[in-house]
Parts: sequence; C-alpha cells; structure tokens
Amino acid sequence: MKRIDLRSDTVTQPTQKMRDAMYNARVGDDVYEDDPTVIELEAYAAQIVGKEAALFVPSGTFGNQLSLFTHCNRGEEVILGEDSHIVTDEVGAASVIAGVQLRTLQSNKGELNPADVKCRIRREEEDIHYPSTGLICMENAHSNGRVISIENMKSIYEIAKEKCVPVHLDGARVFNAAAHLNVDVKEITKYCDSVNFCLSKGLCAPIGSMLAGSKKFIEKAKKKRKLMGGGLRQAGFLAAAGLVALKEMKERLIEDHENAQLLGKELSKIQGIKVALDYIHINMVFFDMSDTGYDADQFVEEMKEKGIIINPPENGSLRFVTNYWVSKEDVDYVLASMKEILSK
Amino acid sequence: MKRIDLRSDTVTQPTQKMRDAMYNARVGDDVYEDDPTVIELEAYAAQIVGKEAALFVPSGTFGNQLSLFTHCNRGEEVILGEDSHIVTDEVGAASVIAGVQLRTLQSNKGELNPADVKCRIRREEEDIHYPSTGLICMENAHSNGRVISIENMKSIYEIAKEKCVPVHLDGARVFNAAAHLNVDVKEITKYCDSVNFCLSKGLCAPIGSMLAGSKKFIEKAKKKRKLMGGGLRQAGFLAAAGLVALKEMKERLIEDHENAQLLGKELSKIQGIKVALDYIHINMVFFDMSDTGYDADQFVEEMKEKGIIINPPENGSLRFVTNYWVSKEDVDYVLASMKEILSK
Amino acid sequence: MKRIDLRSDTVTQPTQKMRDAMYNARVGDDVYEDDPTVIELEAYAAQIVGKEAALFVPSGTFGNQLSLFTHCNRGEEVILGEDSHIVTDEVGAASVIAGVQLRTLQSNKGELNPADVKCRIRREEEDIHYPSTGLICMENAHSNGRVISIENMKSIYEIAKEKCVPVHLDGARVFNAAAHLNVDVKEITKYCDSVNFCLSKGLCAPIGSMLAGSKKFIEKAKKKRKLMGGGLRQAGFLAAAGLVALKEMKERLIEDHENAQLLGKELSKIQGIKVALDYIHINMVFFDMSDTGYDADQFVEEMKEKGIIINPPENGSLRFVTNYWVSKEDVDYVLASMKEILSK
Amino acid sequence: MKRIDLRSDTVTQPTQKMRDAMYNARVGDDVYEDDPTVIELEAYAAQIVGKEAALFVPSGTFGNQLSLFTHCNRGEEVILGEDSHIVTDEVGAASVIAGVQLRTLQSNKGELNPADVKCRIRREEEDIHYPSTGLICMENAHSNGRVISIENMKSIYEIAKEKCVPVHLDGARVFNAAAHLNVDVKEITKYCDSVNFCLSKGLCAPIGSMLAGSKKFIEKAKKKRKLMGGGLRQAGFLAAAGLVALKEMKERLIEDHENAQLLGKELSKIQGIKVALDYIHINMVFFDMSDTGYDADQFVEEMKEKGIIINPPENGSLRFVTNYWVSKEDVDYVLASMKEILSK
Repeated sequence: MKRIDLRSDTVTQPTQKMRDAMYNARVGDDVYEDDPTVIELEAYAAQIVGKEAALFVPSGTFGNQLSLFTHCNRGEEVILGEDSHIVTDEVGAASVIAGVQLRTLQSNKGELNPADVKCRIRREEEDIHYPSTGLICMENAHSNGRVISIENMKSIYEIAKEKCVPVHLDGARVFNAAAHLNVDVKEITKYCDSVNFCLSKGLCAPIGSMLAGSKKFIEKAKKKRKLMGGGLRQAGFLAAAGLVALKEMKERLIEDHENAQLLGKELSKIQGIKVALDYIHINMVFFDMSDTGYDADQFVEEMKEKGIIINPPENGSLRFVTNYWVSKEDVDYVLASMKEILSK
Repeated sequence: MKRIDLRSDTVTQPTQKMRDAMYNARVGDDVYEDDPTVIELEAYAAQIVGKEAALFVPSGTFGNQLSLFTHCNRGEEVILGEDSHIVTDEVGAASVIAGVQLRTLQSNKGELNPADVKCRIRREEEDIHYPSTGLICMENAHSNGRVISIENMKSIYEIAKEKCVPVHLDGARVFNAAAHLNVDVKEITKYCDSVNFCLSKGLCAPIGSMLAGSKKFIEKAKKKRKLMGGGLRQAGFLAAAGLVALKEMKERLIEDHENAQLLGKELSKIQGIKVALDYIHINMVFFDMSDTGYDADQFVEEMKEKGIIINPPENGSLRFVTNYWVSKEDVDYVLASMKEILSK
Repeated sequence: MKRIDLRSDTVTQPTQKMRDAMYNARVGDDVYEDDPTVIELEAYAAQIVGKEAALFVPSGTFGNQLSLFTHCNRGEEVILGEDSHIVTDEVGAASVIAGVQLRTLQSNKGELNPADVKCRIRREEEDIHYPSTGLICMENAHSNGRVISIENMKSIYEIAKEKCVPVHLDGARVFNAAAHLNVDVKEITKYCDSVNFCLSKGLCAPIGSMLAGSKKFIEKAKKKRKLMGGGLRQAGFLAAAGLVALKEMKERLIEDHENAQLLGKELSKIQGIKVALDYIHINMVFFDMSDTGYDADQFVEEMKEKGIIINPPENGSLRFVTNYWVSKEDVDYVLASMKEILSK
Repeated sequence: MKRIDLRSDTVTQPTQKMRDAMYNARVGDDVYEDDPTVIELEAYAAQIVGKEAALFVPSGTFGNQLSLFTHCNRGEEVILGEDSHIVTDEVGAASVIAGVQLRTLQSNKGELNPADVKCRIRREEEDIHYPSTGLICMENAHSNGRVISIENMKSIYEIAKEKCVPVHLDGARVFNAAAHLNVDVKEITKYCDSVNFCLSKGLCAPIGSMLAGSKKFIEKAKKKRKLMGGGLRQAGFLAAAGLVALKEMKERLIEDHENAQLLGKELSKIQGIKVALDYIHINMVFFDMSDTGYDADQFVEEMKEKGIIINPPENGSLRFVTNYWVSKEDVDYVLASMKEILSK
C-alpha cells in the first residue's frame, strides 16, 4: 500500500546514495579527531556557509543549545523571537544547559523588529541590576514555514555588531531559505556569527546537524559538545551520509517547495479550506479546515486509511510537509484523497 | 542644607519608632526558629495578605527569586511581562537560581493580556518538545509606577487555576497598589498563590521583604532560603522595624501618592514638560523634559546643588519618587527650584 | 604497513556484519518512535540486563549524565568514587546538566567501602542544612581496568535500598566485567536501578550506548534526552550495528582479556617494567617503564614508527588496550617491537 | 530562671554596645553605595584581614557561596575537604548557585594533605575530558572545632599559586583560629585569595558576614551579591553592630576557649565520658557519653530542665559551645548539673 508521510521532513529516509556512502565510509575515533570522513564533512560544511570551522552534532536541538552554551556565560540574556524553535520546541533546554535568561520578543511571522532588538540589548556594566545580553538568535527558514528577509537579518546583525553582541542563526532549514530566496546560502549566513543547520530534514541524511562559526568558537564548542555527551566515536558513517546531503540534495529542495505551492494552491480551491498562500515559502503548507464542517481528527484518521500520514491538528491548524519522498504524483493523490473524503 | 531625595523610595530612612523598636527588640537565633520577633512578624504579615504563612527574606529580589525557585522545577517555563522587575532588574537571576526559562510577554503598561497568557501555558505531557509552565508572575504595583486592575489579575488567576499553574505576585509595592485602589490588600493578594512584598521602600523599614503563601510552600521556601544564604541569626532587629512598617506605615502611603499627583500636575504646567498624568497611580512621577530644550543631565546637576537628589535620565525620561521623608513643603520647594532652573 | 591501535577500545572499527546490518537497516523517525530497529534494540538491550526498558543514547557520557539528570533533582547529592569516570572524564557535566553536588569518596581500586557510603547518605528532612542524597553511582568494569566484586556491589545496593536511594551503574564495559567474572551480566546489573553500557568500545559498534532501567525511569529519561539534544531521527542505522554488537560480540570479549593477560605477563618479564598483573581483569594493561631508563614519550614515538599507536604516558603510567582488531599475532608483534626498542 | 545556651555560638545575643551602635547608626541606601556605616565596616574589615576590599553579606553561607560563584565559571571543579561546611551544611548550594563540581577529599581533622590537593588540580586545556580546577577551599577554624596549622595552609596555598588556582578560606571563625594560634589574623589570611568571616557567632553581632579579597574580586562579587538577593538597603544598622564586633569582641574570644578547655578537662574526669582534649582548640567541646550508660536524649532533656540548652546528639556525639554569654560561673553550673544528673 501507498505510504505518503506528510508529518515533517524529519521523517525522510536516506537515499540509496547515502546508504552506499555509509557502507563504504572510512571511519575513525572522532574523539581522537581520527575520523577522516568527519574531518572532510566539517571542512566542507564550514566552507559552504562561509565560516572558518564547523562541528558535527547529533541533532538540531543539540546544535542550537551548544551554540547558546558556547556563546554565553550563564546568567546572560538571549534575545529571540518567542515563536522560535529554541523557545517553543527545545524542552526549556536553554535554562538548563547554557543557563541563560531568555528575552522572548513578539515576532512578525518570524521576523524580529530591529528596533525592538536594539532597545533590549544591555551591557552588564551599565547597571548593577542588569544582566548582559549574551546573544541574539534568528531563525531562517523559520519553523513556521516562513523565510525571513535578508534585509531583516542584515539590520539585526548590524545592530548586534555595533553593540558587540554575537548572533546565532538557527538554520535548521537554511538551505530551504536559500532556495526560496534563490541566493547562495552564504548571502544568508553572512549575517550571523554562528549557524546551525540540519543534514537530516529536507536533505535526507539520517542523523546530524552542523554548527559552524569562527575557529575559536568551534574549538570552544568542541569541548562543550563533549560535556553534553555529543563526543561520538566512528561518526564517519553519519558524516558520509551528511556529505551526500550537502553535495547532492540542496539544489533539489526547490522541488519540495513547488510541490508545497501546488498543494497550497489546490487546497485553497476546496470550499471551507483556508490557506495563507503568500506564506508558503518552503516545503510547509499550513491550512485551516474548520469551515468545511469536517472534524479534523476524523480527517486525519481517514487520510491514514488512504496511506497518507499527517500530524493531528495543532491550535486548529493542519500542516502538510513535502519532501524528497513525496513526488508530484503523490501530491495529486493527496489532493484526490482529500476531495474524496470531504465530499462524503 | 536641605536634602530631598527623590531617586527612589528605597532610600527611605527608618522612622524614630523603628529605631526604638529595633533598640528594644527581643531576638533569638532564627535558624533555630528561636526569634520571637521574627515569628511575630511572619504571622502578622501572613495574616495581612490572607495567606497561611510568611517568611522574612533579605530583599525583594531575594523574595521573588526564592519564589521562582520554590514553585518551579528547573527547566520549567515562567510566563511574565517583559517589563517586569524579575526580567529587567534582577541580574538574570531566574536563569541561575531557579534555572527556569522565561517566556516574556509584551505588557500593556504592566498588564498582561489574559488570552496571551492562556495560549502560552504548556503541560510537559502534551509533547516531548515542551517544557511545563511552572509559574505565572504578575507585578502590582508595577515598577513602572502603574497599578494593575483587579479585574486583570482575576482573569489571569482564573486561567491559571483552570490549568493548575501557580501564580506569584511581585508585590514589592502592593500596599501602594491597595492604597491607590482603595481596597484591603487581600482583595489584591487573593489573586495569587504567593506574594512578595517589601518592608523597606515606602514603608520605611531599613531591610527586608516578606514572602507569603501556603504553609507547605513556605516550609519548602525556608529550606531554599537557607541554600541561598538567607538564613539569618538574630533577625528580630529587622523584624521589629518591619512590624512598625506593617502596622503604622501602610495607611499613610496615600500621602505619598497625593504628593506625586501634585508634583505631576504642577510639572505638566511647565512648558516643554510632558507628564502622563493618568498614570501617576502611586508615588512615582515620570516625565520627559526634552521639549524644554534644557539638558537633562545638566538639570540633574543643578537640582543637586539645590539639595534635590534625582536619578540621571533613563531613555530620555526622568523620575521623581515621593516618600515619607518628602513633605508637601518639600514638593513646593522642588517645584520652585525647577522653575528657577528652567527659567534661566 | 601494520597498524595496531592500543590507545583504547573506543577506536574499534565496526565489523563487516555491522556494515551489512547498517546497509540493510529498516529505519524511521525515532522522535516519532517510528524506527523499528531502534525499538528492537531497546527491547533487546533491556532484556539482556534484566531491566524493564532501555533507551539508545549517543555516547557513554550522554548515558551517565542523562541518568544523573533523570534520577536527581537539582541540588541533590551524588555519592561516588572520586576516580570514577563521571568525576574524572566527563568535563564536570554533573554540575551543569543534572546540577548535582558530588560527594566524591576515596575508592579502593574502584570499590567503595559500603560503610563510607552508608554514613554519607542524607535525607533532606533531617536537617535544614542538608541536601538529600539523590543517587549512588558505581562503575563496573571500572575505567581503571579493574572489575568490582559482586559482593561489593551487593552490599552497597542493599544499603541504598534500605535508605531508598537509587543506584546507577556506569557499565560502559559491563560485559567485560561479566566476562571476567564469568557470570551472566544480569548477576551484576541486578545490583543497580539503572545501568549505562556502551555498544561501541569492546563491542565494536560505531556509535552509541544504552541506558536501561524501570519503564517509568526510561520514560522520564526519554524527554530529558530530547532536552540534551539526543533525540535522533533515523537512528536505526546505529541501532542495527548495536544489535550485532549485543548479539555477537559479547562472548568474544574474553579473547581481549586473554590477550591483555598475555601482554601483561610478557611485559612483566622485561627488565625495568612494572605491571600489576593481579589487576589485569579486562582488556587493559597498565605498566610503568620508568625503571627501564627509557624515556616514555620517546618510546611512544618509536612504537608509532612500528605502526603501534599508544597514548602518551599519564602520571608516569602507560596503557595498552586490546580489542577485536588486535589479534594474538599482533600481541606478539607488539612484544617483539618493545623488546627491540628497549634493547637499543 | 537561668538560661545557658550551649548549642552554638550563633545563638549569641548582641551586646549592649551593639544595641547602642545600631540605635545611633548613620545609614543610607547601600545599593546606591550611600550607607556610610557599611562603607566604614567594609574598609575596616578589609584592612583587618589584609585584603584590598570587603563586602558585607547576610550570612556565612551567603559569603562562601558568593565566593565560589565569583571565583569559578560554571562547570569548574572545586577541591575541598569532604567535612568542610560548604559540603556538609550549605544545602548543596554549590551545585545550584556557582554550579561547580565538588572534588571532596578526605581530611585529617580538617587539614587537607597538600599532595592530595596537588595531584587533583586540572587545567581545562590538558584534555578534552577535563574540567578546570576553579578553586581550592580551606576552612579555619574548622567547623569541627579544630584549628588548621599555618604550615598546612601555606603548603596548599603555594601549590595553588604555582598552578594559578585561587584559594578561598571559609573563615567563619577565623578570629577563633587566630586567638588559638596567638597570631594576628593576617598571618592566616595571607594564605588565601579570599576569606569569608562571620560578624555573628563568637563576635556576637546579630547578622552578617564579610567577604574580603582583591578589589577586582569584590567588585565582581558585588554584582553577584545583587543577583543572589543580597543587595540590602539601610544595611548600616547591621554594619554598626559589625564594627563593634570587629573592634571589641575579637580579643576576648580567648575567654571562650578557656571556658571550653575547662569544660573539657572537667568532663573528662566524669566516668564514662570521653573527650578528645587535644582537639579543643576553640570554643567547642565534643564528647561521647555512651559509656556512662545514660541515654543521651534523656540527658539533653534533663539539662533543659536545669536551664541548659544543648543540641541533640549527632552520631553519638554531644557538643558544648561556649560564647560571650557563658561565664566561668555558668561553666561551673553546667558541670555541677551534669554530675547531678549522671549520678542519679
């Protein structure tokens, strides 16, 4: 039976090339810095995003939290959007590992207002009551599916530089952002001091993310990665798949975006379904079906019977996420299935 | 020479009665729970705010942070206004001592929108990505000088109770709030599970605050107070002054408010000075003198020469705080001095 | 050229069977609990050590620290040997992630004196000055190469149970301990509430460890694993190798021990080399060559030229670690090379 | 009725001179650094112990924990005796506030073996598995009643300096140590970088301790004191008593020691009572009455009926602590009462 998994791009299976690469990987003990494939991946990853160095980490959450832990002293303040992944989906880790105080700002669909950021930056020496601002975080593409403009990033980065505060970019899907903006990813990552991006998700590697930044930053992060339990041994297997991801899978992300656009456009034609078409930037389609009169949980169940897996509604909203394993034909099948269900 | 200190109500000297009470205080070792005056104060303080028990702590920051530490497990989330004292003026302590993740909301002059609070409450069991909401904090009177409405507090408290989340009130100046609203303080404190209020500030005691709540909460807090270094020995000296503060100084706070109103009204008549008269709720007058063309720092200096001490401008705004040691005559002198300076 | 790596058993390359298993692994998104191979591994691992449940984690340090974090509340005390891996080689993580106070005891070659443990157990309610003992940790086989006796473990476990304190076993090399004692591993793990053991090291899997314990403990740990950034996606690749490790590599560890014995015995015959033969329990041989008059760093260098990789001396002591990739012939070659070098 | 309190020197009431000094104290808002009496006390305290600067803190636990928090980065290691007050009686605070890893050593009645200390000092850069040693702590007089020799302190301090690790002295009763050794206190405090000493305890001030060290250290500590909730307002009241304590109460501590000696000597004559006479260094007498056949709890109860307050036995041992309010006559009365009780 057909199985189309639209829950997230995290569900992506690796490609055959990745399996082959893993099978043939040359590996070593990476704690001893002996793994040639990890070394190759880290060098390649750094170069792609225009940073001096990079570090393989087990997950996106690991990369973000390691970045906070490396940039900040405990008790410092981190300015970031209150809908950012670090705030909403990392189990409160910022208060445990880095031990920082979050200053969560309202965002405009993921974009922070540069003026809001500016007036919240604080220097410890200003006042005995103040913590220092240790970091500013941005997220692009945002986990709400939107791409932040380069102008917005630039403005915030310039404010940060003026005030000598480092900037971290949660770029879990930064290649989706680059594809959407049709720019080299360096055009995005030049507006941050460190960036975390995932090899899994849309790029299909099974496990792992990269944290990139200055040489000094990565050196410090390497020790803290060990503290967090992320010092792996023969990590070259994962790095091998990661190299395929970075070398061969970035360019095709635009196909996922096109499929998402198609899904969105067709969904919007179904009576009772509301889709914010303008905000389908990457591979995510959010829609609200409450006006169809159809119960969303029931809908999820019936889709499942047709082999289409989706997450239960969150705050009344449903989400379809396209990926490498969801073809144009699958999109057609999804749409046909939906019409069939809703017409009952 | 005259000396009128308008920087804050924290500068208040104790009254003669307080000195006498301290001199004659019966004291014991409070770590052994042997200090009769502390015991009396804690019982009295609890009763005033309608809670089962109370604890003497060295400062308002200590009381707030002890409350977070006692209510929350590390890694939990605390929802509060981003302009609240806990966020802005406690040196990032929430990330160090309690180790919690702040979820800072935009406030409307100190009031949180109940709907904003509601949709941010999370339960750990809902999703593996979520921390639990461990606490909601309100602040009344707010350190921006505004009093939060009882309706607003009630709405938020009811949401919290429905979701089984505790509520802490930073009531450093809760008696000012009660005086402004002309209600018994219990009408305010009934909308929280714990409250911290200061014996110093407008009530003039030299040192100390009270943390009040359920018996079980205070018992737990007592041990954590020891951990934080707040287990004091012959604390009855401070408690003796605190009893005078609570018994004799609350009712007269309205005089400070009247003096602030008078100051505000007269200031607003001076050309080029802007005062938000509607927001002088307690003993604080914020004003902007930029349209006078007079340099604010220069102004502060010249006031000092006349024996009037004020803080330097913050974000273009100046603040006068009235207190027990600032009489109606002092207010007249302040106004006369200002006019003299500005007319030069 | 020959390459014999005696630095550690962490350097072990995976076997061909592991590569095959990884190549053919059925995988899914383990954050959605969709990875069949991870599910199989976790069930199998739990059963082997006689616990209700188990969890795949990226490393031994991750497993130990996750265990501390799951068992303890912050500020609790952990009793453990001061030479245990958690103290000496995990970058101080216990003070960062779990946030616990270590109570480090002198050990007798890795064994704690049960009486020492007993008199240090504290209950929070006993005294306002005391933290609670949150956990007792043992390590077997110890990272110093010794195996702790079952009697010792039993005594400490019984004390712990009497006082209702949980016990964690750092069993990174617990299968080496079982092989040395010639018992089923459950005879060891029955004296702990949780155990962490490595799939890498002597068992040759490339990456990963297992944390096992009660169902409730593992459920709690799963969420905290996410917080620490250890929620992996298609982890089945690593689990596939892990299954081979657990199913096929445990029994042969005794060969590594025999090779270590042989190495030790022959080393002890070389003039000027001191080996504590009685303490070669597993695959580690520690020796002191200072009486040979030969410079240890120089020796390391010359061995390298012969294709034998060893760590630099630590506190005057050198270490050879045998593993799957070090055959009896390799041992002979190592001994011959040493004699050659030292006879110069 | 007579009341002789032998539980601890923390129970000491302030002297009449202290009450007078408090009554007449000139005070200001110390957060604004406006309190002249605090300023005087801090300068005086620094000078007495030969340090550049000092800071008033609410308690001994506060001072010790603030020192750890100021010296160390989170995650660093602190080497100290496992029977030191910081380990045994500060509620595990080191793992919460400073967030450091304790390396607790066996002590010889409070003295650490310098060689033990030396071999545990670690530098972060040595190995990716190591935390840095952030601090070494000593305690003199030790809370077990013993005075550490200056030679021992000197040895450890020299090792620390050689390795560039700072040294903190918990000198809660450092003036007792100086009195016992018959030296100026600076002869002791010169072997540490920071020292915490109590104004309460034997010196009889009601509340407060001093943390002293370099100017830079104290400046840093001042901000962290605010974070911990120890920024007090009109603290001059407590400082006034503290000045009397430091100026007039240090010299007479020797009387408490003499009374303790007398108590110890006479106790040792009572059949069945064991006292380690050689270890009565300061004002504490520990004894074991188990050979009297008299139940210790019953004994405590009967002493109470005679107006003599003592703590319940701890691990079979009882403790008498002499202080300013326990005269030679009181000692005679205590001894007579004991004989009466035990002869029943």
